[in-house]
Amino acid sequence: MNRNIKVGVVQMNSHVGAIDYNLKKIIKFIKLGRNRKVDLLCFPELALVGYPPEDLLLSKNFLKATELAVKQIQRIDKNISYIVGYPKLIGGKLYNVAGVFIHGELKYEYKKIRLPNYGVFDEQRYFETGEEPLIFKFKNRNICLTICEDIWNDFKISQGSSKEYLPDLLINLSASPFNIRKQNERLKLLGNIARKNNIEVVYSNLVGGQDEVVFDGNSFFLDCEGRMISKAQEFQEELKIQDLNYKKENKKPFFKRKNKQDNLSSIFSALSIGLRDYVIKNGFKKVVIGISGGIDSALVSAIAVKSLGPKNVLGIAMPSKFNSELSLKLAQMLSANLGFRLKVSSIQEIFQKNLELLSKKIYGKTSFDATEENLQARIRANILMATSNKIGSLLLSTGNKSEISVGYSTLYGDAAGGIAILKDIPKILVYDLARFYNSQNSSNLIPNKIISRDPSAELRANQKDSDSLPPYRILDKILEAYIEGGKEVSEISRLLKVQKSLVRKIINKINDSEFKRKQGPPGIKITSKAFGRDRRYPITNGFKEA
Amino acid sequence: MNRNIKVGVVQMNSHVGAIDYNLKKIIKFIKLGRNRKVDLLCFPELALVGYPPEDLLLSKNFLKATELAVKQIQRIDKNISYIVGYPKLIGGKLYNVAGVFIHGELKYEYKKIRLPNYGVFDEQRYFETGEEPLIFKFKNRNICLTICEDIWNDFKISQGSSKEYLPDLLINLSASPFNIRKQNERLKLLGNIARKNNIEVVYSNLVGGQDEVVFDGNSFFLDCEGRMISKAQEFQEELKIQDLNYKKENKKPFFKRKNKQDNLSSIFSALSIGLRDYVIKNGFKKVVIGISGGIDSALVSAIAVKSLGPKNVLGIAMPSKFNSELSLKLAQMLSANLGFRLKVSSIQEIFQKNLELLSKKIYGKTSFDATEENLQARIRANILMATSNKIGSLLLSTGNKSEISVGYSTLYGDAAGGIAILKDIPKILVYDLARFYNSQNSSNLIPNKIISRDPSAELRANQKDSDSLPPYRILDKILEAYIEGGKEVSEISRLLKVQKSLVRKIINKINDSEFKRKQGPPGIKITSKAFGRDRRYPITNGFKEA
Repeated sequence: MNRNIKVGVVQMNSHVGAIDYNLKKIIKFIKLGRNRKVDLLCFPELALVGYPPEDLLLSKNFLKATELAVKQIQRIDKNISYIVGYPKLIGGKLYNVAGVFIHGELKYEYKKIRLPNYGVFDEQRYFETGEEPLIFKFKNRNICLTICEDIWNDFKISQGSSKEYLPDLLINLSASPFNIRKQNERLKLLGNIARKNNIEVVYSNLVGGQDEVVFDGNSFFLDCEGRMISKAQEFQEELKIQDLNYKKENKKPFFKRKNKQDNLSSIFSALSIGLRDYVIKNGFKKVVIGISGGIDSALVSAIAVKSLGPKNVLGIAMPSKFNSELSLKLAQMLSANLGFRLKVSSIQEIFQKNLELLSKKIYGKTSFDATEENLQARIRANILMATSNKIGSLLLSTGNKSEISVGYSTLYGDAAGGIAILKDIPKILVYDLARFYNSQNSSNLIPNKIISRDPSAELRANQKDSDSLPPYRILDKILEAYIEGGKEVSEISRLLKVQKSLVRKIINKINDSEFKRKQGPPGIKITSKAFGRDRRYPITNGFKEA
Repeated sequence: MNRNIKVGVVQMNSHVGAIDYNLKKIIKFIKLGRNRKVDLLCFPELALVGYPPEDLLLSKNFLKATELAVKQIQRIDKNISYIVGYPKLIGGKLYNVAGVFIHGELKYEYKKIRLPNYGVFDEQRYFETGEEPLIFKFKNRNICLTICEDIWNDFKISQGSSKEYLPDLLINLSASPFNIRKQNERLKLLGNIARKNNIEVVYSNLVGGQDEVVFDGNSFFLDCEGRMISKAQEFQEELKIQDLNYKKENKKPFFKRKNKQDNLSSIFSALSIGLRDYVIKNGFKKVVIGISGGIDSALVSAIAVKSLGPKNVLGIAMPSKFNSELSLKLAQMLSANLGFRLKVSSIQEIFQKNLELLSKKIYGKTSFDATEENLQARIRANILMATSNKIGSLLLSTGNKSEISVGYSTLYGDAAGGIAILKDIPKILVYDLARFYNSQNSSNLIPNKIISRDPSAELRANQKDSDSLPPYRILDKILEAYIEGGKEVSEISRLLKVQKSLVRKIINKINDSEFKRKQGPPGIKITSKAFGRDRRYPITNGFKEA
């Protein structure tokens, strides 16, 4: 029996809510697939509406528009078959559906069975649980169709009663967000399923950024021994086609684990596409960044220049009397190296005027404390936001995960911005990414001195981050063990060989600064536990670590 | 058979996460109940940890601390029986539990069966579903124990096989947040259950504020015909005791629906306790408010003065050249009437300095637009936040639901603050509440002119809100129909007799300003659909109303 089938995976960058835009893209890819003689084209989960559509799914109008689009999808082309993900009301209940369109006919609608409701996922808020697995015949193949979570944790293929229906091809439509370890997990998981069930695998994932998450694509085909036959690019929209013929591809190697450099490259791409999509999908072209001469704003500007081009990036350096001359010089070198414009203006006079107003009219003479530090950061935010408003550029916030964790940032100050690119990047990883970026270019575009100097907010005389925080190599490990690892004080203290009192202090700082994060911009998730939808803590929280 | 039983409801104000604090309170109420010879004391849902504990429920340490506290609860007093709500790991799975402590023994642990996962609720993120209803014998009564959502939508009492176990008393532990219609819904629902099953009802609800929600208490006892026997106060912590003897209380009237004045009183209380608890539970005593001479800041200061006392409220008026003298005069009258301190300082010079810096150093000379409006609001926010930082007062944001809906507010400007008291109060309701407040006092503490003048942000010359927004009596109805009612453009247009294009414009404004709300402070939910946890829209959202 001839089991040959030409399968295409459409690794699509959907725009959440933009049904017409997504529909046009679906039409374009279906025509492309037909021209390339694809038998069956697989779009990702909810490709028609983007992921996650959140409470748009509660809007009658939105669901009506989706329904109309599904009718149009059915009519696109009878000379090819395709599977598309969309939400659908069936009998008054909403399901996360994969519609199977066989030669112009909507033949099956598979309803997702496992609805994730953890981490960044809220699917049980919207969807009813599907109950029937779907195995269908197509071109001499028995295809088992699944959606994302369905295959995670103890997946078992339910089989028909006769051998005739034993599936030999598993298709999974996904909206699986990137994190550093995710692709290895997917390959391991689906490789096991392939081997165990003697089944080929088609994995079709979304690509592109949506608010706090970024989808990496990385769609792939596995043979029935779980070996990778071919894969789509990371972080690029793509139609990837593969002939499947149920032969064992003995010569292909198993997927190789990524090394550190590969991981840095993936993270850099995740941040770049996450930024680009946030900017573009929200109707902007240009961005503005406060450039301090420090590492965080240097890395953010490098990412912005890469994503949007140097002409679309404006830097503003705003020294006060606490900023060293070196900082300004480094900001200028950076701008020259990366090719973005830099405006410079001292905020000292405005800072002084504010101090006078506050001491004369509001609270009298006082000594210098965090108030005056925050004030400088907020004056800068005003200038940046005014520029953003005036020239229509999106302000990028430059804070990293380490400082955002412990509240070492000023609300409405350096925390301000449309998106915080480094929100899920701990400080040590900021350095690694800067070095990685430099290694990818012929010269060190980020000046070495920016990487080697001691980190400082320069909001008071001779300030260093290490005055109030432990060294980042320790801090970052505590943060990872607590936030990602879910470990407790004594465990962390033992594992990292640091004092319990320090660990406790850091954890309490994390939870006490939730009020700042609740008002912070979204960031791009790259770890297994990011701030935002992924980690939902109360602001009012009386729990203290013992 | 003597069915007499003395039941106490502890309408408790728990502090989320503060297990020791809550435990002390539980001990205090148990001792109080024993002294007053209560047979069975009913605490609210999750009383031990507060509601909602959110991702604290994913912390091993938090669950351990809870477990220890439950052991202590068991030992409090053998001379009384009590039911307490807490989370508990049972066989590696987490449940929302009601522990029944009969004379010092933890006799039953009922696991909540229905887990709400809509609106502000995320219980399926944390809890496993309980499967067994609990009916237990106590003092000649057959008690059916339920937790909150269990009784909503088609509740059926499962009965034992013999008549002996036919329940005659239904107990419901709740963490049911306030909204304007909620108490009527509860009474109707439980009244029906009482009549249908010929059963008495004990309803024990939390009280107090937690971030975006406020619990109204309003706990009650119903006879087996669904008539109210007695109830606890709204918005006050209280031990309410009632002798139940399964007699029909024919003389008591059915619960009377609230009139408009009652509703205003409830809303005013909700905002007051919501503010007080947010301030106190987050470790503050004092607040600072920008006072403009307009209605929003007037109402917020009235609520703050009522909740915290005039000595703990500081107002700051910060006119620019666009503010009328009348505004300042009204701000001063308000401060004198309400008895809070008012500091006054013009921001004109700082505004001017910023304009010069921006035009000379950043983007050149331009004409006046929203940039300059926002700039004034942000300069004020800086002064308010500096004051907040310096004197340790929490900044209150004064925006109302109407302007927050359509983005008529400045991010990091007037939107700044620890909590936005009026976030769920549409403008017309702001006026109603101001009038209500005045009617409760011998003289009009909020000057009449503040209520009668045309609303204006005074950020440019002769600005009126009506320049860019439809009249609030129309806007508010559109907002309600769309946000709370979930209605669509043509429906709203028909119902309210306004043009479709206007409705469409307003709806698109709502969804286009999600980025501002995502970075706004929490507010207090009082309607059936508030911004925040209750309504989760993507920032990046290509859906436009047709």
